[in-house]
Amino acid sequence: MQIERREFLSALALAGAAVFSGNPLLAATAPKKEKLGIALVGLGYYSTDLLAPALQMTQKCYLAGIVTGTPSKAEAWKTKYNIPDKNIYNYQNFDQIADNPDIDVVYVVLPPSMHREYVVRAAKAGKHVFCEKPMAPSVADCEAMIKACNSSKVKLAIGYRCQHDPNIQAIMKLAKEPKFGKVKMVTSAAGYFDARTDHWKQKKALGGGVMGDMGVYALQGARLATGEEPISVFAQASTTRPQIYKEVEETMMFMLDFPSGAKASCQTSFGINMNYLRVNYEKGWARLEPQSGYNGNKGSMSDGTLIEFAIKNQQAKQMDEDCDAILQGSDLLVPGEEGLRDIRVVEAIYKSAASGKVVKI
Amino acid sequence: MQIERREFLSALALAGAAVFSGNPLLAATAPKKEKLGIALVGLGYYSTDLLAPALQMTQKCYLAGIVTGTPSKAEAWKTKYNIPDKNIYNYQNFDQIADNPDIDVVYVVLPPSMHREYVVRAAKAGKHVFCEKPMAPSVADCEAMIKACNSSKVKLAIGYRCQHDPNIQAIMKLAKEPKFGKVKMVTSAAGYFDARTDHWKQKKALGGGVMGDMGVYALQGARLATGEEPISVFAQASTTRPQIYKEVEETMMFMLDFPSGAKASCQTSFGINMNYLRVNYEKGWARLEPQSGYNGNKGSMSDGTLIEFAIKNQQAKQMDEDCDAILQGSDLLVPGEEGLRDIRVVEAIYKSAASGKVVKI
Repeated sequence: MQIERREFLSALALAGAAVFSGNPLLAATAPKKEKLGIALVGLGYYSTDLLAPALQMTQKCYLAGIVTGTPSKAEAWKTKYNIPDKNIYNYQNFDQIADNPDIDVVYVVLPPSMHREYVVRAAKAGKHVFCEKPMAPSVADCEAMIKACNSSKVKLAIGYRCQHDPNIQAIMKLAKEPKFGKVKMVTSAAGYFDARTDHWKQKKALGGGVMGDMGVYALQGARLATGEEPISVFAQASTTRPQIYKEVEETMMFMLDFPSGAKASCQTSFGINMNYLRVNYEKGWARLEPQSGYNGNKGSMSDGTLIEFAIKNQQAKQMDEDCDAILQGSDLLVPGEEGLRDIRVVEAIYKSAASGKVVKI
Repeated sequence: MQIERREFLSALALAGAAVFSGNPLLAATAPKKEKLGIALVGLGYYSTDLLAPALQMTQKCYLAGIVTGTPSKAEAWKTKYNIPDKNIYNYQNFDQIADNPDIDVVYVVLPPSMHREYVVRAAKAGKHVFCEKPMAPSVADCEAMIKACNSSKVKLAIGYRCQHDPNIQAIMKLAKEPKFGKVKMVTSAAGYFDARTDHWKQKKALGGGVMGDMGVYALQGARLATGEEPISVFAQASTTRPQIYKEVEETMMFMLDFPSGAKASCQTSFGINMNYLRVNYEKGWARLEPQSGYNGNKGSMSDGTLIEFAIKNQQAKQMDEDCDAILQGSDLLVPGEEGLRDIRVVEAIYKSAASGKVVKI
C-alpha cells in the first residue's frame, strides 16, 4: 500500500515537474514558479561551506529543504537558514519528499557510492536531480541514474560548476572556433594536499580515490579543451602515504589519445597542490591557472588575450543556470550524459592502472 | 706506419692537452694558452647559424678550424671567418688534426649516429671534445665515447647549452636548496613543428627521432628539476605524418618515476610548438616558458620571484665556460657522463614505447 501511495504521489509530483519542463499543456494548469526549491542531501563540507552560502545569492532557486542523518545538523541548519520542519528529512523518510511541493530539485551531495541510490530515489519521488561529481563509481551506476531520471521525466544535472565558469568556457570555445588551429597537446592537473587521515575520500566502499574526486577536473580539462572523447588511455596509480591511502590511490597520472590525434597528459593527486590547464594548438597556446578553483580561475592565450572573467559565485551561477534551464524547459548545460562520459574514461583509467597496459575506450 | 705516426702525434698532442688540463709539471714546459682553438665538425644549420656566430663573441675560445665534406662550404667559411687552409679538414684527412696545434677542441656537430666515431677519433687525435646532444643513439656508444676520452686523457663535454643558462639553473637550485620543499610533480615539454620532409632527424640510421633531439630537453627539464635519476618510465610514440615519420617517432609522451616519489609527465614532438617546464613542490611551484629556447628563457615562482636572467648568447656562454674549465683544469659543467644519463633513460623510453609496458631503469 505504501508503495502504491508513493507511486501515486510520485505521479502527481511528476505532473508538477512537467510544468517546469516546459510542457505547455500542463503549464496552463499550474502556476509557474519563479524560483525552484532545492533540498540538499548530505550536509558535509561542500553543502555547508559552498552550496548553502551560494543558495543565499541565487535568483532562480533557494534553499528549501535538507536531508541529513544527523539531528544536530538538522537543528543548526533549521535555525541558520530558517528551514521549516516539514522540509527537513532524514534517510529513512527521504522518499516522502515526493509529497512536498516546496521541493523541486534534490541536490545529492553524498559520497559517490551513494549517488546512484539517492538519484534514483529522488527521480522516483518525481524531483529533478542535481548530483555532485563524480557522478558515480561505475558506468553501470551512471546509466541506471540516467535511465531512472528519463523514466520519471525529471532532469538530471551533474554539479560540474566549472563548465558554468566563463574562464573554462573560453578554452572550450577554442575547440569549437579554432582561433589557433587544431588542439595538439593538453596538460591538465588538479590536486591538493589533503591532510585528513580518515575521510570517505580515502575509502573505496564510499567511492573514494583521487581519480573521481580531483581527477575528473584534470580529465575534464582535457575533454573540454579538445571537445573530443578519448579513445585510449594509459594510467599509473600511486601513493606516498600508504598508511592513509590503503584502499584507494593518492595520485593518478594518465595519458589520453583523442580521435583527432590530440594528446593529453593529466595528473591528479591528494598529495600535491597543483591546478592548471595548458593547451598547445597548431598555432598558439592557451592556459588557465587555476583551472578549477572555486574562484579566481584565470589564464591567457599566446596572442596576448587574457582570460580573467570574474564571477560572483561559481556554485550560485551553476545552480541558477541549471534551474533556469528547468524553468525554461531548455537543455541543461551539464546533463547526466556528460557525467557518464567522464566515468567511462575513469573506468578505463582504473583498468589501465591495474593492468599496466594501454586501454582502448 | 701511418698508424704509428698518428699515434706518436697523438701522444704529442696529448702532452699539449695535458697543459690545459692543469698538469703543473707539463704546464711549466709549454706556454699556457689564453684562448682555445675550436674546430667545428659538420657545418649544418646549428654550426652555421648558432655556433659560428657565438664563436665571434667568446672570450676563452675562437673558431680555429672546420671539418666538412662539402668543398663549397669550406670555401665560404674560409672567406667569412678567415680560417687558414691548414685548419680546414674533410672526413678523410680528419685524423691529421692531431698534428695541428691550433686546434685544442673538436666540436662534433654531426648527426647523432656519427657522434661516436668522431668523438673517438677526436680523442685519439688528442683533442678535447665537445659533442652535440643527443650524445649518441645508445648507451654502448656513450660508454665507448667516455672511455675513449678517458684513455686519451682529454675532456668530453656535451653541448647542453641549457645547463649553462641561469634560468634553468634557478630551477636546478630549488632541488638542492628546497625553498618550496620536495619536488612532487614535473611537467616538461619541448617541441616544434618541423616542416622539413627529408632531414636526418627523420632517418633512423642517422640517429633521428624526436626523443633524442627535442626529447632530451623535456627529459632534462624533469631530471634537472628533481636533481634525481628516474627509476622507471612509461612511454608512447606516435606520429600524425606517417609519410614523413616513417622510421622514427614524430611525438613521444613519457612519464617518469623518481626515487623520492617525485613524478614527471613529459612531451616532445616535431609536430607541436611547445616549450615549458612546470614544477610543483610541497609548498609552491616554479615554471619556465620557454625552458630551452636559444634565448629568452624565463619564468616565475609561486612566491612571486621572477626568473628572467638575460644572457648575451647561450652557446657563447656554454663554450666559454667549458673552455675555461679546460684551461683551469676544473670540472666540466656537463661532462659525457651527464649525456650518458639521458641516453640511459632514452633507451628505456624506446623500450617502453615498443613494449607498451613500464620499464624499470
